[in-house]
Amino acid sequence: MKRPIYLIPALLFFSVTVLAQRPPAISSPDVHPDHSITFRYFSKKAQKVTLNGEFLKAPVSMTNDTSGIWSVTVPPVKPDIYPYSFWVDSVQIADPNNTYIFANERFKRSIVDIPGDQPLVHSLQNVPHGKISYRYYQSTTLGTTRQLLIYTPPGFNPTAKTKYPVLYLIHGGSDTEETWTKVGRANLIADNLMAQGKAKPMLIVMPYGNVRPSPMPDFTKDMINDIIPFVEANYPVGKDSKNRAVAGFSVGGGQTLNIGLTNPDKFAYVCSYAPYTATEEFKKNFSDWSPNADQLNKQLKLFTISVGTEDFLLEPVKQNIAMFNEKGLKLDTQIVPGGHTWMNCKLYLATTLPLLFK
Amino acid sequence: MKRPIYLIPALLFFSVTVLAQRPPAISSPDVHPDHSITFRYFSKKAQKVTLNGEFLKAPVSMTNDTSGIWSVTVPPVKPDIYPYSFWVDSVQIADPNNTYIFANERFKRSIVDIPGDQPLVHSLQNVPHGKISYRYYQSTTLGTTRQLLIYTPPGFNPTAKTKYPVLYLIHGGSDTEETWTKVGRANLIADNLMAQGKAKPMLIVMPYGNVRPSPMPDFTKDMINDIIPFVEANYPVGKDSKNRAVAGFSVGGGQTLNIGLTNPDKFAYVCSYAPYTATEEFKKNFSDWSPNADQLNKQLKLFTISVGTEDFLLEPVKQNIAMFNEKGLKLDTQIVPGGHTWMNCKLYLATTLPLLFK
Repeated sequence: MKRPIYLIPALLFFSVTVLAQRPPAISSPDVHPDHSITFRYFSKKAQKVTLNGEFLKAPVSMTNDTSGIWSVTVPPVKPDIYPYSFWVDSVQIADPNNTYIFANERFKRSIVDIPGDQPLVHSLQNVPHGKISYRYYQSTTLGTTRQLLIYTPPGFNPTAKTKYPVLYLIHGGSDTEETWTKVGRANLIADNLMAQGKAKPMLIVMPYGNVRPSPMPDFTKDMINDIIPFVEANYPVGKDSKNRAVAGFSVGGGQTLNIGLTNPDKFAYVCSYAPYTATEEFKKNFSDWSPNADQLNKQLKLFTISVGTEDFLLEPVKQNIAMFNEKGLKLDTQIVPGGHTWMNCKLYLATTLPLLFK
Repeated sequence: MKRPIYLIPALLFFSVTVLAQRPPAISSPDVHPDHSITFRYFSKKAQKVTLNGEFLKAPVSMTNDTSGIWSVTVPPVKPDIYPYSFWVDSVQIADPNNTYIFANERFKRSIVDIPGDQPLVHSLQNVPHGKISYRYYQSTTLGTTRQLLIYTPPGFNPTAKTKYPVLYLIHGGSDTEETWTKVGRANLIADNLMAQGKAKPMLIVMPYGNVRPSPMPDFTKDMINDIIPFVEANYPVGKDSKNRAVAGFSVGGGQTLNIGLTNPDKFAYVCSYAPYTATEEFKKNFSDWSPNADQLNKQLKLFTISVGTEDFLLEPVKQNIAMFNEKGLKLDTQIVPGGHTWMNCKLYLATTLPLLFK
């Protein structure tokens, strides 16, 4: 049979009508073996293109060649996963050639993953993998159907007689229920720590913590009245406080304190990462708080607050730590280098997972 | 206890350092009850902002107010889910205030969902929901660990004695393994059709079809040698051709023809949506193809090709249909209004799901 004659017009048509609407396929970012990185962006019209990334102290200019490709190579970067974006003249954008995106309600950035010479705690390694399930649940609190993500560990047995413990893990403000896996790699951190015997097999439930227009109080109700019952009705999990932990970052770190400390009968583990606490709910819960410290210390098997020394919330976090200490609460603190970033967030999770359910 | 004094500095600091880096929180898109839509974008520096969307015949200009908010309201749009983007001067961007994103290897667009007055086949309805699981599998073909998504139906029983059938569903070129759920709503279409008794309970496996540098041949091998064995080792599914279907859109529609028709012992159902076939593999498979039509027609319980009358691939698709007819193959065709779009893609899936595994 002769070669079908339409192949050529089809290819031409595809090239002309579809490809011409798109910029050329270019490779960005390219991470080199020495951990330097080349970023590229195509524009024949831009006057100025700048790279901004959380691995940089300050934005760097990109330079263009005659074909319209703007690029810059940055010197070796410490292996980790970093958000970055381009500024094209006055416009901030995610890297169009990178599918790995930091989706957020307020901005779009891309993610670059610099592998370590040895695998990092969040690296995809050749170990058994758990799975992430996207589930809908009915929120009677909010009168709507919401989505959450549930990590089940490697070898998870849905009909197990032994009950699994559950970590409820909350994202930061303007993040989504996907941020802990897509940016925070919570699933791979859990896979790796479980493979090393450092973390117990557990479920990790990642809900969507943002509630408009009044975030905090309603989300606490959603967690207690809707999310936990949904999980406990659908998975073989322990239904007492010793089988439940709550953790979260930033706004989610504040929600963690609100949810965990006002419901110590529900959670024996409370891990707050760089909590943002300048909220009405935090004020309501803690400004006149007189807990029975002895009882609370007995109920809480772990209460920890983590923050970075360059975190813009360092001072209020320190003052909250002092406030909880003043109330007589046993509290582990983790103050480490780094800022209010998802690089630190991964570290906080990797540090606290081994402490849960022991 | 007095109000903690740090709340005010913390709030100020947060406002100044974090919020100042971000544009103001604005609502976009706003879908109104009459199905008109308002889009908004903030920029004090842009000279021109344009809205481009698949519900428009041509891009429309947005106008700015003195506060830097650009906006446009478009007249009522037919209920569906549409990709759109903004052009800010020379830069195409996803809507920063919309988390619902069309992630793609070549571009980033946003998605707007216009609900129908009655629920559409892809609408989130109050019916039992299946779940989507993100899984890693080892590709021996490609020497790497890859991700795929697996939809399991409502009430899925992982220890079922009755075996579930499986649809392998492939995205378009430069899409990802998430496009069929995030843009195509395959999970909700399946939920709704199953709730109505129109589709059989089945698994839907959504792999990542792009393979660099030589896409087509390697992906066929990956499907046959890695993906199917992974699914069949981990789920209670039927392991014969009558329990397997393959479907795909655009480049994935071409892959569907390559995979399905060269492996009729593996797939009894082959559904190709607007196939892009100007590839080396298609040429190799079909330019000198002399199938035993009688045998193939017996093996295939369903072979269907769908395309839109405004699809830029309409002519080559029609010529492929003629070619398959010439070879004596029984072939159902579905030629409907619409272009090479994910709106049509959802329709093709909704039309073929009820035909599978009957």
